[in-house]
Amino acid sequence: MPSVGAALWRSLRAHQVYGANTEVGKTLVSTVLCNAVRRLPSPGKAAFLKPVSTGPLDDADDRHLQRHAPGTLTRCLYQFDEPVSPHIAAKQNNFTPPRDDDIVASIHKTLSEWAGNGVDFALVETAGGVHSPGPNGNSQADLYRPLRLPIVLVADSRLGGISSSISAYESLLLRGYDVHSVLLFRDDYYQNHEYLRHYFQDKSIPLVPLPAPPVRPQTQDVDTAARDEEAMTTYYQRVAQSTDVGGLLDQLAAKNTERIDRLEAMASRAQQTIWYPFTQHHGMQPKDITAIDSAYDDYFQTLVPTDDAHAPKLQATFDGSASWWTQGLGHGNPALALSAAYAAGRYGHVMFPGNIHEPALSLAEKLLQGIGNARLQKIFYTDNGSTGMEVAVKMGLRAACHRYGWDASTEQISILGLKGSYHGDTIGVMDCSEPSTYNKKVEWYRGRGYWFDFPQVRMSQGVWRVDVPECLRPHLGADLEFPSLGAVFDVEQRVRSDEGKRYRDYIRTTIAGLVQQGMKFGSLIMEPIILGAGGMLFCDPLFQRSLVDVVRHHLELFAPSAPRPTEGNAWSGLPVILDEVFTGLYRLGRRSSASFIGVDADIAVNAKLLTGGLVPLCTTAASQEIFRAFDSPDKSDALLHGHSYTAHAVGCQVAVDSLNTMMKLERNGSWDDYRRDWASASTPEVWSVWSHDLVRDLSCAESVNGVFAIGTVLVVSLQDLHGSGGYTSTAARGLQQKLSAGGPNFAVHSRVLGNVLYLMSSVTSRPTALREIEGLLRAALL
Amino acid sequence: MPSVGAALWRSLRAHQVYGANTEVGKTLVSTVLCNAVRRLPSPGKAAFLKPVSTGPLDDADDRHLQRHAPGTLTRCLYQFDEPVSPHIAAKQNNFTPPRDDDIVASIHKTLSEWAGNGVDFALVETAGGVHSPGPNGNSQADLYRPLRLPIVLVADSRLGGISSSISAYESLLLRGYDVHSVLLFRDDYYQNHEYLRHYFQDKSIPLVPLPAPPVRPQTQDVDTAARDEEAMTTYYQRVAQSTDVGGLLDQLAAKNTERIDRLEAMASRAQQTIWYPFTQHHGMQPKDITAIDSAYDDYFQTLVPTDDAHAPKLQATFDGSASWWTQGLGHGNPALALSAAYAAGRYGHVMFPGNIHEPALSLAEKLLQGIGNARLQKIFYTDNGSTGMEVAVKMGLRAACHRYGWDASTEQISILGLKGSYHGDTIGVMDCSEPSTYNKKVEWYRGRGYWFDFPQVRMSQGVWRVDVPECLRPHLGADLEFPSLGAVFDVEQRVRSDEGKRYRDYIRTTIAGLVQQGMKFGSLIMEPIILGAGGMLFCDPLFQRSLVDVVRHHLELFAPSAPRPTEGNAWSGLPVILDEVFTGLYRLGRRSSASFIGVDADIAVNAKLLTGGLVPLCTTAASQEIFRAFDSPDKSDALLHGHSYTAHAVGCQVAVDSLNTMMKLERNGSWDDYRRDWASASTPEVWSVWSHDLVRDLSCAESVNGVFAIGTVLVVSLQDLHGSGGYTSTAARGLQQKLSAGGPNFAVHSRVLGNVLYLMSSVTSRPTALREIEGLLRAALL
Repeated sequence: MPSVGAALWRSLRAHQVYGANTEVGKTLVSTVLCNAVRRLPSPGKAAFLKPVSTGPLDDADDRHLQRHAPGTLTRCLYQFDEPVSPHIAAKQNNFTPPRDDDIVASIHKTLSEWAGNGVDFALVETAGGVHSPGPNGNSQADLYRPLRLPIVLVADSRLGGISSSISAYESLLLRGYDVHSVLLFRDDYYQNHEYLRHYFQDKSIPLVPLPAPPVRPQTQDVDTAARDEEAMTTYYQRVAQSTDVGGLLDQLAAKNTERIDRLEAMASRAQQTIWYPFTQHHGMQPKDITAIDSAYDDYFQTLVPTDDAHAPKLQATFDGSASWWTQGLGHGNPALALSAAYAAGRYGHVMFPGNIHEPALSLAEKLLQGIGNARLQKIFYTDNGSTGMEVAVKMGLRAACHRYGWDASTEQISILGLKGSYHGDTIGVMDCSEPSTYNKKVEWYRGRGYWFDFPQVRMSQGVWRVDVPECLRPHLGADLEFPSLGAVFDVEQRVRSDEGKRYRDYIRTTIAGLVQQGMKFGSLIMEPIILGAGGMLFCDPLFQRSLVDVVRHHLELFAPSAPRPTEGNAWSGLPVILDEVFTGLYRLGRRSSASFIGVDADIAVNAKLLTGGLVPLCTTAASQEIFRAFDSPDKSDALLHGHSYTAHAVGCQVAVDSLNTMMKLERNGSWDDYRRDWASASTPEVWSVWSHDLVRDLSCAESVNGVFAIGTVLVVSLQDLHGSGGYTSTAARGLQQKLSAGGPNFAVHSRVLGNVLYLMSSVTSRPTALREIEGLLRAALL
Repeated sequence: MPSVGAALWRSLRAHQVYGANTEVGKTLVSTVLCNAVRRLPSPGKAAFLKPVSTGPLDDADDRHLQRHAPGTLTRCLYQFDEPVSPHIAAKQNNFTPPRDDDIVASIHKTLSEWAGNGVDFALVETAGGVHSPGPNGNSQADLYRPLRLPIVLVADSRLGGISSSISAYESLLLRGYDVHSVLLFRDDYYQNHEYLRHYFQDKSIPLVPLPAPPVRPQTQDVDTAARDEEAMTTYYQRVAQSTDVGGLLDQLAAKNTERIDRLEAMASRAQQTIWYPFTQHHGMQPKDITAIDSAYDDYFQTLVPTDDAHAPKLQATFDGSASWWTQGLGHGNPALALSAAYAAGRYGHVMFPGNIHEPALSLAEKLLQGIGNARLQKIFYTDNGSTGMEVAVKMGLRAACHRYGWDASTEQISILGLKGSYHGDTIGVMDCSEPSTYNKKVEWYRGRGYWFDFPQVRMSQGVWRVDVPECLRPHLGADLEFPSLGAVFDVEQRVRSDEGKRYRDYIRTTIAGLVQQGMKFGSLIMEPIILGAGGMLFCDPLFQRSLVDVVRHHLELFAPSAPRPTEGNAWSGLPVILDEVFTGLYRLGRRSSASFIGVDADIAVNAKLLTGGLVPLCTTAASQEIFRAFDSPDKSDALLHGHSYTAHAVGCQVAVDSLNTMMKLERNGSWDDYRRDWASASTPEVWSVWSHDLVRDLSCAESVNGVFAIGTVLVVSLQDLHGSGGYTSTAARGLQQKLSAGGPNFAVHSRVLGNVLYLMSSVTSRPTALREIEGLLRAALL
């Protein structure tokens, strides 16, 4: 979708005219409104834009305006002669239609010009009904959505018109449009206007009925055309005398002003009212808060701080953090909005224990079949990554205590993990991470585990390197270099290498030492490949694989006398919990990030992308044996966890549809260009939407410490000259500000983690937008 | 809405025919389908039902079927002569239209008869378009929704028909309908069938174009009528020869079979796949899991375990736990579905830190203004009650440590609470409850607090009593009796009484003793009035009020040297956290349950009803002074908490609309009948949807230990002859089973907590349904 700003000006009240059906009188309504603008106590300057017109030129809607609303500026962008839907007209004329992006950009440009030229009222009239296809066959309601113009809906006064008017309204609403007024012809027999007035009153939308227009003659010769013209002139005069359209125009103007006033007030009102997550409010100003009018595809529509009444109030800002790593299929996705609405309409929410409904069952089955880990047999639902990890750690600890006969009420059971890991904000999973900025000031935080430092992957000076931490140097020696990212990920080969053995030796002796000191471990917990909140740390996949191998093959470490499990899929040593909340479901280009390290988890957690970026939902998948650790005749042995909205139908349905869509994109080869770009440097299975060349070039920049890209994620680690890196560093702020200033077409919203700036796209982001962002990065860093 | 089962039979494939508009050929399509049924290789028995027909009797759709689909059973339930929308026709005839409930019930009855009489294909044809009003003015799409018949959509082949067809489809979808096929006339000029075939193919919905019908004569005399008849006969013959409608019928039949097969398989598939919350799976059988097809208003549509192919497969089951206490405005609420869709279409999800969007700001402002507690100034968003309480406890502890200069990393800071309290399933808030069945086997659970036993309210033998626990007896003596529930709630009066003083003395000396033993307290945490998960324990409001009074007035208990706060709204002694997740937002009949005890919390948490029962969302509201405890130039002092979907637009928008709806119900006096019923026994502000007489009568039943009702909640505590009560007791199972067997119109789904059975309605439940449930209770217990 185009990176155009939504259409909003203070001086220009611009609206889009949609019809509940074709032939409901859109152009008549437009004419009435434009005429009324000139008749206001302080007359205004009106303009009429028909982006796409079909039918004989002479009969065209802009011509009608010229005749009957003299003084109105009119323009038609694309004209087709056949009186059929534009997608047919374009086909019949053997004509390459204008691209949807260009149509939308042209409308914005036209309106901008008009705003600059003192026009204060403009209508953009659609063709046919709300879903009538544009020249490329896409529904107009979708095609024009980036502009999100407030709507003047022309309802249908004919028999059946109540239904078509309400359905059209619903189709607009579920695309996030605001309908600002409804007009229709008065028909005293069918009385649709009475029914609809009541209907829209409930929604605070004003409805104005107009007198019925004269019947148009069936045949068109010179005489009838003249009579028709005359009848119309009389009609418009009658409307002007009988109907208070001026009042409606005042209401429309007031809504435009209110919308802008509200947008401008939102930051300071938010500062008064909102306690933001992960935010130090000290010294925070309203200017630090961005007012977001709406969002579409990859773009937020953000308020432009300008006092110029003729300047656009909104601009497109690329959502460069994928809204905290959740977005997969674009904001305001109409298919997902409809999925959510369907589930809401079919179920609302259904309490889950003892019940089953289709979305929850479908999603569970889809995940277990699709993730490609035969161990995982059961799905437990919660609401977010943090609660899903609470469940995972409850599962893992219980399974270990159950097998090893430990009494956790009298002894401390710890977990094994990695330094810099992060699994969520609830206190139980905070305890799964080492003390850090995030948790150490939380009064009840008590880290319960041991966390390995680990070798990290980055590209620097054009070379893929693995940095070996101090503690590992005695075992491994110097840093490692690799000819390609693929070579780093060739885990099956590297496992058999000398460095694999050294990793395992180090891990085994470390754990043995900890156990000797009296520590007891109940689970191994890791985020595969990238430790997100900890600072986008790229762990050497071989190290994570080695951790799992040691834990599973050296069960004597944890319980010398415990029998080796005989079942193939039973956990061994410790339950392995993989936190794929961030890394799973195509975030790194693969359905499961566990496949990068060749490990089948005993417990795996998914969230974020699960619902395609719409609503919270989380799944914790577990093996049959983990499940069995809670099996007992005693109810109190059960996993007594469950949130009110567990497996809510809306979330599950949206997740089913998101997963289907993403899997289809994968099947259809939608990412093959990206794969090809990375093929020379890597195995085909490791790729990124970000260019390989960009990564190489940035890795040579003076201010860059390291860089990598995988899947939709790009991470740039900057030299931190004044600080020690980490979460509180400010080294990346400058780069963030340059992105925020943006380029010719859009601004870029990004997030930093200390000296690290990362960018994240959805899985459907357009290559042109990504390359434009890459240009901004190059300009800033090279 | 009626308590009718959704319409589903194995032997009878019943569909509803909706039109994208009026005059699109619904009856022609019905005729074609019914004819095709008789032409199948093994001919079937077809039936046609027109619930509401308008227009001349002779021209009626069922007559058309009789003429052109001979052998088809036909029936029309209500006939109006005027060819206008039924709501106008009913008005014009000065006729009291049939109630919507009766129409729906008649349809179900007719289809049931047909199913019993060997009909295997039935169509229920609507009038006009999907939203054309029924006789009472309600949209047909809403009116017929309880039946949730699969849809045969007749699309519009005329100019503009693409749009109206897709909009009609979307309106059906957002009410939870399944569209099983689309038919329309072929029009080679407009080619709507080509566009729509492609559109619906994507959704796996088969589309069949039919030849265009003959043009109907404009005038109707005997001759033209006869010619018209003849033309139609020829037309139907042509359709039969040219179009493979039999294939479509096979697909429809297969979908009906698949739907039932899937419903019948769901329980066992769920048992294989789903790890249920709060469920001991040991010995669990598929029969213990209820397959839910859909839900509407207060009713689940649940699978009936029957092998009789002619018997209904679904029944209405009253959702008597309000789906884990979340429902307020009914399942499948179309207004909330549309709210959700609007927010999804306008935003998707927008990452929250540093940004503000309208739904999040509106909801925050609405809550702060509406709750009626001037202390609360800031809203922090999370996803569910548990995470919201984690945030609350982080806030409270930080504020206390900050003021008192405690170092929580070296000393244990505890909380004060009530025995039997429950604040959620994440480990941090589990620690806020005393050891219990729920938490004591959780490996990392470490209860951190002191929990008071407390006096409980119940009605027994027709008298409202407060049972004094053992520990309080030395202070208070015998149990208390009250003339009415209002007298129990007359807290301002009771505070000044002798029992108020005794409560306070007991509380003060207890805390003093604990502090002397070295305990440090950081917050007082309570669920006002009813401790939900702990067993629906009704705490004497005076006791909760006394706790707050002691904590706030005796700050010397907690820090002898701390200065008394000078600001009026500053917390004093300890931050008071009220967990209103269950009790707030009209669950107990009032916007805030804190008002029952006359306490302004420093921190208050809302969830469950917040979104009217649709999606997870939680708010933690805090005072300015609590907020300031996190203010510092150091980022790491901030409240570093935040879930990916924090303040997701869908949840916030649905919450705004739910709150507006509930507040409007309150303003409009929708609950005045209930207030009147309780007025004699109580002050007007304490009332219940459950009859006062029922409570009194049940309180005299032999098997009942105590009973109470407040707001939408009814709690019956049963004598537990064989156990000791509590969560693992089975005393209430018998009553639960009787409710589950149900009455003449519906079954009742309820939840038990040990020996306690509770029922909970939405705030819009119909009195007739509630009284029917009361009848079941009386029959079971009296």
